[in-house]
Amino acid sequence: MRMVDIIARKRNGSELSETEIDYFISHYMKDEIPDYQVSALMMAIYYKGMSGTETASLTKAMVESGDTIDLSPIKGHKVDKHSTGGVGDKTTFIVGPLVAAAGIPVAKMSGRGLGHTGGTIDKLEAIPGFQVELSNQQFIDNVNQFKLAVVGQTGNLAPADKKLYALRDVTATVDSIPLIASSIMSKKIASGANGIVLDVKTGSGAFMKSLEDSKRLAKEMVTIGSQLGRNTVAVISDMNQPLGYEIGNANEVKEAIEVLQGRRVEDLRELAIELAAHMTLIAGIYRDYNEATEALAKLLDNGKAYESFYQFVKAQSGDTSYIEDLSKLSSASHQIEVKAEEDGYVHEMEADEIGLAAMHLGAGRAKKEDKINHGVGITLRKKIADQVKEGDTLAILYSDHDDVEDIAGMVKQAYTIKKESINQRKMIYEVIK
Amino acid sequence: MRMVDIIARKRNGSELSETEIDYFISHYMKDEIPDYQVSALMMAIYYKGMSGTETASLTKAMVESGDTIDLSPIKGHKVDKHSTGGVGDKTTFIVGPLVAAAGIPVAKMSGRGLGHTGGTIDKLEAIPGFQVELSNQQFIDNVNQFKLAVVGQTGNLAPADKKLYALRDVTATVDSIPLIASSIMSKKIASGANGIVLDVKTGSGAFMKSLEDSKRLAKEMVTIGSQLGRNTVAVISDMNQPLGYEIGNANEVKEAIEVLQGRRVEDLRELAIELAAHMTLIAGIYRDYNEATEALAKLLDNGKAYESFYQFVKAQSGDTSYIEDLSKLSSASHQIEVKAEEDGYVHEMEADEIGLAAMHLGAGRAKKEDKINHGVGITLRKKIADQVKEGDTLAILYSDHDDVEDIAGMVKQAYTIKKESINQRKMIYEVIK
Repeated sequence: MRMVDIIARKRNGSELSETEIDYFISHYMKDEIPDYQVSALMMAIYYKGMSGTETASLTKAMVESGDTIDLSPIKGHKVDKHSTGGVGDKTTFIVGPLVAAAGIPVAKMSGRGLGHTGGTIDKLEAIPGFQVELSNQQFIDNVNQFKLAVVGQTGNLAPADKKLYALRDVTATVDSIPLIASSIMSKKIASGANGIVLDVKTGSGAFMKSLEDSKRLAKEMVTIGSQLGRNTVAVISDMNQPLGYEIGNANEVKEAIEVLQGRRVEDLRELAIELAAHMTLIAGIYRDYNEATEALAKLLDNGKAYESFYQFVKAQSGDTSYIEDLSKLSSASHQIEVKAEEDGYVHEMEADEIGLAAMHLGAGRAKKEDKINHGVGITLRKKIADQVKEGDTLAILYSDHDDVEDIAGMVKQAYTIKKESINQRKMIYEVIK
Repeated sequence: MRMVDIIARKRNGSELSETEIDYFISHYMKDEIPDYQVSALMMAIYYKGMSGTETASLTKAMVESGDTIDLSPIKGHKVDKHSTGGVGDKTTFIVGPLVAAAGIPVAKMSGRGLGHTGGTIDKLEAIPGFQVELSNQQFIDNVNQFKLAVVGQTGNLAPADKKLYALRDVTATVDSIPLIASSIMSKKIASGANGIVLDVKTGSGAFMKSLEDSKRLAKEMVTIGSQLGRNTVAVISDMNQPLGYEIGNANEVKEAIEVLQGRRVEDLRELAIELAAHMTLIAGIYRDYNEATEALAKLLDNGKAYESFYQFVKAQSGDTSYIEDLSKLSSASHQIEVKAEEDGYVHEMEADEIGLAAMHLGAGRAKKEDKINHGVGITLRKKIADQVKEGDTLAILYSDHDDVEDIAGMVKQAYTIKKESINQRKMIYEVIK
């Protein structure tokens, strides 16, 4: 087998066999195939795409390139949740304890990564004392006892994905849906869950801006999951505005806890229940969707999910006094209000720009070495469909500097206000199984 | 400027600027852009193509990456001829002395290369004593005195083309017409001629099998030439069967000399006069095409072209007794006849297969290290449209081994014989200026 022939076959639009894909990944990992052949193949895939079978083979080969997490010591059906990423997305902090309260073990490994804000474990570290590093045994024990544990990613999961991604990043071959799908799924599958619920965001704050692309990505990932024996469901959810009202780290954790305490942040609550429902259905806990959503809403309302979160934080050494008194969660030294300059209704929000504003405040990392400031961030006062009068506060910036006019300008620019009223956006577009 | 942005722009189908192309070639030559980015760009070009302006910019950048030959010490308008390569193509040995006889200086540099037979200079070496290495001054002097000199390529012409081609060869990005066009033209333009006549072969023995692709390649090359200030004409000629009757080295030289001596090998003579005519028209020697072809036919018939060839060989130390007595030109120890097994007419010939058969006999190099055997080769006795009776000789193999049944089988298989008669193929399909 020769790599040049594999490239030529894909270039001509042929379907690569599992043997060819295994050959390419395994020899690439042994540095026996050079980057320049792989980048040519990636560009051919960019144009010619891959079938479901090819994408599954690629995912499998990338999983097999590294470690896989063995969750078998954990009792029950393990279901993982993954979001393709959006602005203000703190659903994990609600979904995790919610399905744990329903009796499903949630053994979550999470990265730090780059982005508008920190990752899941960065956000959890806003709670003083919280330990994101547990021994493997402690992790397993915590999940068995409390049904929920979240730790930093350990082990060398899907190193072929890492190597390929680094190459794609510098060769303009990132934007390929089958390659994105296999990249995401390789890490999820290596993480060991039996089932996977994918939250595929769509809109101005999502990686996929169009609904059509989001559906294609969702379908590709569900195909990969089912071809590799994982019960996989994708929920396509709206990301044309930030989720909830808080963007940052401490403030996102705070908002999630408030929802667990019964506060009605409608979009966040709706999405959390939707994702949790599909997780419980995969685990076979409830008979149908309606039963699941009703039961889960009750677990939110009766405080069982909050209790589960509290126990989880305590088990990972977090200072629970910060949960009991949310005002203690760190906040920045300055508050800057962004005010409306006209009357009307919010029609659109550039969620990406608001996320970028939060990053400029210090909430996220642009480079791996950057340090996250847990206390900074943005609180939205107005979202799509809200009425606005001139002088109303659109958003508040929390900053450790007072010289943030540019950032305030970005946030103001991110709002499109028009005279006529409009309806609220719907949260869930489609569920793909 | 970042290479990844250049790749992304081409990937999206944008036209690259001259500045971007210069940046990419010059930094690639300094090893400041890695192969993996260049191969991704090549694959994007494979799919998205390049405009005439882009192709000209790429050619110019590749020319500027190395040496260029200064032909200004040669008096007159220098016109070069280039063939895209075919089987039995010995037109250079006729065209060169023919246009020299018409008074146009022909300063030809030629490579050895891989192929079914040797290159132009390998073939000339079939004449004992012939020197393909002349000092630069000697080369110039010979052209000024005899209007014709042929030497091995010296200098570092278009090294960027060499580097790019080596990368394309292993990344399945060779088959791109704009890349092929700029590769050919970069070497021609670096060679210093004022005008270029391209013989673009089409058919079973050509690199371009379809007439459509051949036309596209011809048009691209003519566009490049005219954008870079070279008067360029492309002749699209038939390569659905070998040119003339001889394939090899000594035997090709022999056949060309016979044509110079007045023998009527119709396809070879027609193509040689056609190519020579366009060279003389570029040089402004004759008023029009008809005057040119008539004058050139006369220079063939009255022995002036032969005389020019004789002087040229003598000036480069070739033993002219081999020209005077062509039977002295080296021949192989064995002759094997390939015979027809049925009656009918030759409808098709797999020219590529016949070329490959010649290579297997030892006439060409598969690897750079291979040695050429000047005496081996193939003489065709039947070509397309010829009538054949069972037992007739189709071709004769000249070999230094008698165990060549496989090769004889290849040649026999290359003929398609059918009952009904057919017309001869036409030689010239189109002239593109």
